[in-house]
Amino acid sequence: MAPIKIWELCAADRQRVWSPFCWAARLAVIHKGLDYETVPWKFTEKEKLQAASGQGLVPIIEDNGKVVNDSFAIAQYLERTYPDRPTLFGGPGGEAASLFVKNWMMLTAVKPMLQPLMAVDIHSLLADDDKAYFREQREKRFGKKLEEVCPEGERPAKLAAFKAALEPLRATLDAQPFLGGEKPLYTDIIVFSFFMTTRSVSATKLLDADDPVHAWRERMLDAYGGRKAVGYPV
Amino acid sequence: MAPIKIWELCAADRQRVWSPFCWAARLAVIHKGLDYETVPWKFTEKEKLQAASGQGLVPIIEDNGKVVNDSFAIAQYLERTYPDRPTLFGGPGGEAASLFVKNWMMLTAVKPMLQPLMAVDIHSLLADDDKAYFREQREKRFGKKLEEVCPEGERPAKLAAFKAALEPLRATLDAQPFLGGEKPLYTDIIVFSFFMTTRSVSATKLLDADDPVHAWRERMLDAYGGRKAVGYPV
Repeated sequence: MAPIKIWELCAADRQRVWSPFCWAARLAVIHKGLDYETVPWKFTEKEKLQAASGQGLVPIIEDNGKVVNDSFAIAQYLERTYPDRPTLFGGPGGEAASLFVKNWMMLTAVKPMLQPLMAVDIHSLLADDDKAYFREQREKRFGKKLEEVCPEGERPAKLAAFKAALEPLRATLDAQPFLGGEKPLYTDIIVFSFFMTTRSVSATKLLDADDPVHAWRERMLDAYGGRKAVGYPV
Repeated sequence: MAPIKIWELCAADRQRVWSPFCWAARLAVIHKGLDYETVPWKFTEKEKLQAASGQGLVPIIEDNGKVVNDSFAIAQYLERTYPDRPTLFGGPGGEAASLFVKNWMMLTAVKPMLQPLMAVDIHSLLADDDKAYFREQREKRFGKKLEEVCPEGERPAKLAAFKAALEPLRATLDAQPFLGGEKPLYTDIIVFSFFMTTRSVSATKLLDADDPVHAWRERMLDAYGGRKAVGYPV
């Protein structure tokens, strides 16, 4: 069986993958125990991606001539196509709940806290021709200059708010080792993918060592080979 | 088959069930399509409950001589005991995710907002001998007099914060009719049980008519016979 090709958003160092959605796709492939090879992709390579997939966003995967885009659609494709491999969802209830977990993470922790905290770090790591695109896109989203999105003085409060926002995750991981129960499922992958992003781009210490979320992140790093990724081991 | 007995926390009107955990147990029994009868129970009837279940908290269910306490344990018992009835979890992934949904609802919407907003309403509806117990318990929890937990002037801000806290739920219900996907699962029951509590005790209008969460609550009310419950149709 040919390895699955995963197109992933990369920094100037093409091994540095930083999009959480690309991480989610890669982690889903790893969860299924399937071979893969990475196709590092930059914002400025739109035409190549368009030609391969008929649309403009990564991740995409290519699997035996089949092309799938969108991280969640990729997870669903893998679950359907490889039902004899370890399950990603643990049934339709887990699949449906994954969307809620994603919305929770995005709306309560990522958009208000992680994105501002990481904006300048990400920019600094991009290839020169990607920097302009990223700056324009983010400055439009935040409505201010990249350097003003999270001034130094506001970082401690944002970090504290990020930790506080994880309280429902923390309470759950106090009671069971993974969101998926005894073993990680796609719900874990969704949340962990954002931590792989922060690990890829930033030396900021997001979690205290005695936080159950920290211990869970360590278990996830081990389970999915996360320590091998280019990034900052914090 | 004898109907399942559900012990439920009641107000002075013994048909007015108001504990979210008791609602979750009843809704899980309804989800399974099983006959039930309610055993209304008051805080001051500790000895009766202790004798029946060997512990002091409702809900409990009695099913063919078997006694189960704790709402989540009840859902798990029903899923195991009646596997041919409609599934509550949609597989182990949905079961594991239920704990996260419960923690999310409790920590972000219930403890900081709903409990303060409802405290005086609940107290006013209790039987006289339960009032003292409830007041003592809640004043200890909040560290202030019941009437000072949510002064009139703070209600609008608490209500707005409650609506904002539901954003991840709202985003999910924008994409699918239930947390469980096309059909409600126990994840829906968990969140809805708190809305059955507020409906049971308060005339406060919590949701705007054009809110996707409002439309979902309407669907849940219809699916689980919620409109028949003693309460306020808001």
